[in-house]
Amino acid sequence: MSDLFWPGAHRAGDLMSEEALLRALIEVENAWLRALVSHGVAPADAAADLRPLVSTDDLTAIAVDAEADGNPVSGLVSLLRSRAGDTAAQWLHRGLTSQDTLDTALMMCARDVLRRIEDHLRTQVGALQALINAHRDAPLLTRTLTQPALPGTAGRKFGVWLTALLDAADTLDALPPIPVQIGGAAGTLAAPVELTGSAQAARALVRATAGTLGLAASTPWHTTRATTTRIGDALVTCCDAWGHLAGDLAIAGRPEIGEFTEGGGGGSSTMPHKNNPVLTVLLRRAALVAPGLAATLHAASAASLDERSDGGWHAEWSTLRTLSRLTVTAGAHAAQLLTGLRFHPDRAAANLVSAQGILTEQETMSRLAGHAASPDYLGATDILVDDVVTRAHRYLEGAHS
Amino acid sequence: MSDLFWPGAHRAGDLMSEEALLRALIEVENAWLRALVSHGVAPADAAADLRPLVSTDDLTAIAVDAEADGNPVSGLVSLLRSRAGDTAAQWLHRGLTSQDTLDTALMMCARDVLRRIEDHLRTQVGALQALINAHRDAPLLTRTLTQPALPGTAGRKFGVWLTALLDAADTLDALPPIPVQIGGAAGTLAAPVELTGSAQAARALVRATAGTLGLAASTPWHTTRATTTRIGDALVTCCDAWGHLAGDLAIAGRPEIGEFTEGGGGGSSTMPHKNNPVLTVLLRRAALVAPGLAATLHAASAASLDERSDGGWHAEWSTLRTLSRLTVTAGAHAAQLLTGLRFHPDRAAANLVSAQGILTEQETMSRLAGHAASPDYLGATDILVDDVVTRAHRYLEGAHS
Amino acid sequence: MSDLFWPGAHRAGDLMSEEALLRALIEVENAWLRALVSHGVAPADAAADLRPLVSTDDLTAIAVDAEADGNPVSGLVSLLRSRAGDTAAQWLHRGLTSQDTLDTALMMCARDVLRRIEDHLRTQVGALQALINAHRDAPLLTRTLTQPALPGTAGRKFGVWLTALLDAADTLDALPPIPVQIGGAAGTLAAPVELTGSAQAARALVRATAGTLGLAASTPWHTTRATTTRIGDALVTCCDAWGHLAGDLAIAGRPEIGEFTEGGGGGSSTMPHKNNPVLTVLLRRAALVAPGLAATLHAASAASLDERSDGGWHAEWSTLRTLSRLTVTAGAHAAQLLTGLRFHPDRAAANLVSAQGILTEQETMSRLAGHAASPDYLGATDILVDDVVTRAHRYLEGAHS
Amino acid sequence: MSDLFWPGAHRAGDLMSEEALLRALIEVENAWLRALVSHGVAPADAAADLRPLVSTDDLTAIAVDAEADGNPVSGLVSLLRSRAGDTAAQWLHRGLTSQDTLDTALMMCARDVLRRIEDHLRTQVGALQALINAHRDAPLLTRTLTQPALPGTAGRKFGVWLTALLDAADTLDALPPIPVQIGGAAGTLAAPVELTGSAQAARALVRATAGTLGLAASTPWHTTRATTTRIGDALVTCCDAWGHLAGDLAIAGRPEIGEFTEGGGGGSSTMPHKNNPVLTVLLRRAALVAPGLAATLHAASAASLDERSDGGWHAEWSTLRTLSRLTVTAGAHAAQLLTGLRFHPDRAAANLVSAQGILTEQETMSRLAGHAASPDYLGATDILVDDVVTRAHRYLEGAHS
Repeated sequence: MSDLFWPGAHRAGDLMSEEALLRALIEVENAWLRALVSHGVAPADAAADLRPLVSTDDLTAIAVDAEADGNPVSGLVSLLRSRAGDTAAQWLHRGLTSQDTLDTALMMCARDVLRRIEDHLRTQVGALQALINAHRDAPLLTRTLTQPALPGTAGRKFGVWLTALLDAADTLDALPPIPVQIGGAAGTLAAPVELTGSAQAARALVRATAGTLGLAASTPWHTTRATTTRIGDALVTCCDAWGHLAGDLAIAGRPEIGEFTEGGGGGSSTMPHKNNPVLTVLLRRAALVAPGLAATLHAASAASLDERSDGGWHAEWSTLRTLSRLTVTAGAHAAQLLTGLRFHPDRAAANLVSAQGILTEQETMSRLAGHAASPDYLGATDILVDDVVTRAHRYLEGAHS
Repeated sequence: MSDLFWPGAHRAGDLMSEEALLRALIEVENAWLRALVSHGVAPADAAADLRPLVSTDDLTAIAVDAEADGNPVSGLVSLLRSRAGDTAAQWLHRGLTSQDTLDTALMMCARDVLRRIEDHLRTQVGALQALINAHRDAPLLTRTLTQPALPGTAGRKFGVWLTALLDAADTLDALPPIPVQIGGAAGTLAAPVELTGSAQAARALVRATAGTLGLAASTPWHTTRATTTRIGDALVTCCDAWGHLAGDLAIAGRPEIGEFTEGGGGGSSTMPHKNNPVLTVLLRRAALVAPGLAATLHAASAASLDERSDGGWHAEWSTLRTLSRLTVTAGAHAAQLLTGLRFHPDRAAANLVSAQGILTEQETMSRLAGHAASPDYLGATDILVDDVVTRAHRYLEGAHS
Repeated sequence: MSDLFWPGAHRAGDLMSEEALLRALIEVENAWLRALVSHGVAPADAAADLRPLVSTDDLTAIAVDAEADGNPVSGLVSLLRSRAGDTAAQWLHRGLTSQDTLDTALMMCARDVLRRIEDHLRTQVGALQALINAHRDAPLLTRTLTQPALPGTAGRKFGVWLTALLDAADTLDALPPIPVQIGGAAGTLAAPVELTGSAQAARALVRATAGTLGLAASTPWHTTRATTTRIGDALVTCCDAWGHLAGDLAIAGRPEIGEFTEGGGGGSSTMPHKNNPVLTVLLRRAALVAPGLAATLHAASAASLDERSDGGWHAEWSTLRTLSRLTVTAGAHAAQLLTGLRFHPDRAAANLVSAQGILTEQETMSRLAGHAASPDYLGATDILVDDVVTRAHRYLEGAHS
Repeated sequence: MSDLFWPGAHRAGDLMSEEALLRALIEVENAWLRALVSHGVAPADAAADLRPLVSTDDLTAIAVDAEADGNPVSGLVSLLRSRAGDTAAQWLHRGLTSQDTLDTALMMCARDVLRRIEDHLRTQVGALQALINAHRDAPLLTRTLTQPALPGTAGRKFGVWLTALLDAADTLDALPPIPVQIGGAAGTLAAPVELTGSAQAARALVRATAGTLGLAASTPWHTTRATTTRIGDALVTCCDAWGHLAGDLAIAGRPEIGEFTEGGGGGSSTMPHKNNPVLTVLLRRAALVAPGLAATLHAASAASLDERSDGGWHAEWSTLRTLSRLTVTAGAHAAQLLTGLRFHPDRAAANLVSAQGILTEQETMSRLAGHAASPDYLGATDILVDDVVTRAHRYLEGAHS
């Protein structure tokens, strides 16, 4: 799924695309119908595989019809009913409400998005480990408020970026399991209980459906939307981390500084000499766009109302889609950028040598401490790098286990 | 262009769609080549109609290729060159830079968006005029901080919504003419001047191209982005106005209050009795989403850098697209909502009669003024409504002239 | 600390106020100096209690001077040095950088803010437990998209609000321990290592200082700012939850609906009959303001650069202050609102009885299930309420342990 | 009014401070009482100068009391009544509502803010004119996407910044006259009409009050808030422009590039060699913070409801205050930065000479045009600079007239 307005969007494949959402919506209806049948709520002849009944050929019609009720589920259900056998048609969707189907489908899409982002993070973490291995002790000037500060190393710089990535990864890891949404019209499971005869049996349907879809069972959350804001906050935290390293590289890659270059840059439509840091630029773009989208998820959550919100819910879908796809795309870009990143130790060393005054602090300190200045002024750099390398190792191991 | 994640998106047709952007990009290249030829800069045999050379069949390829350089123009230009005659291929795009083509194309799309929104505003203004004509003096309780305040009229309520619409329309009207972007690689018109031999001749090309495209000639604005933020601010101001009236209607349409209903509501996937205020809900959604997008345009503008920004520019495209399309969609919804809006004078009158204490202020005032209370307590309602009706009339007249 | 622009701000006391920040800044310097002395880095006669040396009388001067270096620490350190004994003056702040002192002080303030919010959340949770105890089975109409949906109970409504509060509390609980920031000029602990002679000894100073201040020891995070964005995200999540219940109450408290009223409302400057839901209104205000502030923390984090950011860091301070204080204030308001909330079972029952069609879904379901309709249509309401009550109980117990 | 959390805040003096707001609130009540008396609505012995009755000593009490009604006006009015003579006490505030007084007072504060910002803009425009005069033709490399593009001049760079400033100034100039808010309890002028006996007479009071306060007369705008969003949008547009030039300078001032330095930089608490670009950093901070605040004003506007909003209105005050004060502060910083800015033509020339490939585009163009390359490749730089200088001149003249 490319996007002329968002170069690189095809990196997100069809994650959280219209097609993916449609498929997920059908999967939800299918899983629910299966649960109804397998739990003896619906008769055996209601069993049907709903998935072949609707395809992406129906997408536009369903999307257009969605305006009538404000969401695409009613239209989809009508279509499924018109194409399913009589008994299946009679039973499908019974006990669910539109929000159940749509929220659960969005969560299926979100789960896939989060998995892909974790893949990208692992690649990035591995790339930084490799860069640390290759250039750990190479001199690299530190800078504060844009000006030379103290001597430093490339290992420490990579370690800082790695820390930001691992902090973002922690935020993803801290997400509660992605839940289904099944509550019925008012979030009370009234219809499932009426159909099954008991709350326990209704809950068994919820568990079975969650199991089929690979999501966590959950009490209904129609108007308690921390589920979506937590996902949004985790996504924007990833974009923050990539924006940070892209910001460093946008400057370090200027020829006057020349400490890093992208493995492969982009050209210009008119200037043949140009070798533009395209991935860096596209990451900075993502970091500028993400915060406003995550904030909208909070505004939507705060607008939760009654047993189904009058706009707050609807504001989430497209916002979550855009934020998800741009984060996946940025994740792919960051992985490629870090994997191909070239460090220029000669330029880094030269810049450090040219920097003025970067040992004056050390003089103050050694005089105060009453001893000669240490041979370097790298402080705890070594163990700080060790720490983050260990943390990275643990992250990658955890991910593989 | 429907969107499963944004019910109603087909109302925006293909305004600011990928297809529209592609067409506009080609129009820009076409207009520039025409100017080069007609001004004698390029030879006569460079003349070519570029528009048939690339179609929406090429859209995906161009969008995917856009990642290589970070924008879609280089890829489009390559494609055009591969399909045009030799001389046209040699001359097309000469003097332009990618940002020229893309910004100008976006402005063409934005112009069409703004026109459509104005159409919707005119419909809305007309609908409110009709509502005022029909129900001007019908009693309607005023409320402040959710509680009954004073007696009021339906005319005044419509007048307040109308004021908000006209304020938004003023914001649109205050936009400077939508400009082309033609500056060449560094915004200095260096290449056009080299090609034409003089700054005056280069500027003549700019004017000719602007004329062809129906945009305003302009000095380059590659990194001075008030052009886009002003558009974004105007769009969100429209959404604010619609959010406001939708907020009023979301409450007034509750059966316990019952003063207004949407002309046609939406159903429920499981509750046959429901008649949901779908347009109201979809408008509230738009009003929740728009502010974050307009803010992103400002953040992008503030990130302007050098002679072409390293991410700030790129953050605008998708953001402007989304904000544009949702505003057009909301404009269509608001027009439909107001055109079909049903006012229930009986319920409104009953609510006013039931309200407690709404004449206590009048007692204080008439006692203070030393005379008997006036027969009503509507204050200047009548002339306030006159004022806004006059303003609406002038707006519609201006629009038609 | 009241604020004429933010009624209720005095509820935040001096949490995250200028005075609190100044005190915290001094505490940080004091703790560091103490660590230097107690670890034998500085001589015994450098020992001094810095806290009496600077007071809030110095606040304005320090704040004005902060412009010179862009942060208040240099000015504070100069003042402390001018007032401390010679040896203390020589040693204080040695090994720290401005960002160390300021970030650590902000974290001390943030910790106090988070504690207060947790207190407020506990009060709110308790209040909702009490409301559930009192009104668990009282009939209350459910509504979706503003229209009547199904029968419901007050217990379930309170349970939904409680779920939102507990989700917000979980977000707070998931925060990593609030850390100190000690990294020296470039985040490498170069100066502490120079002073102490080893990275281990430098780290011991960090641990000692963290211990004194009641914060967690940490590797430096000068430009990895998930620490602040996580706090911001947790705060806005609280405001979302309060915005949600205030949104419900803003509607339920309208006299036409009349299901709830605030325990004590506000008056009007001109309408003596008014009883405005002031706490509700002030909570809605907070929920509107918080998302933009949390987004700014992300934008600032994404702008992290080099070893100290050139604006991204500075953008955090005031934003975090405002978000913190408004969240504490809203927490106090929500606690008071829920504690004093009055439910009107008669009105609730009457509204439910008047609602049309709310059992049509049940008819469909019971017909489908082939049995008579159940005596009620409350579904799993009872066990859903049990679940959240249990969760609330566990939360309060955990908090008290 | 300094602020430990926002270095430089004292530059905003007491503009839009609590003290200024209190004074403005009293001025509004005073002007209204004067209008009542001078128009013969209130008796002559109601005449009183209310301004001495309440002082900043009362600020805290009024701010704390504001929580009771959700805004500070009721408390202020009570205080004024308790301290005024009997007749004045009886008449003051009669006909107004809290929102009238507070909105009008905020507009008085906003007007002063806007004037100050215009002063700062004029200083900045003058400083850039002087820089153009001094360095117009000095070579300066242009850069796109962080990489060298084409030859350029310092004059063009200053001209681009100037264009951004003038675009921001245009946005300020396009603001409608700042209005009073006088509508009475429900925006219908019911009480003023009851007091005066006619709508015409009530409107005369509005005009008189507006005249006294130096604001524009206006129909009520209690829930049509484009008035505040337009101001917010203009303020953030200024911050965008300053963020842009600060972004350029943050990079150009790095010693590896060295083309510009701030006239006077800031020091470091631990590194004596540092000369930090503090104004640049503080401007970048402002540009990061402003967009979220302007977006909140839109969100608040969209939440307009009934005849007085239940939170949307309240969300504006503090947001507008913060946005106003930070914009004024940034304006002062930008004025100082541009006035003291040092350009280093030698470094700029050297960087240009070292840049690779910056004439390859020219080769393509001259070959295509069939003539030898021009002696420079500056294109229309000269007339582009002329254009903006002319525009600046016109702006300063307009401002002085």
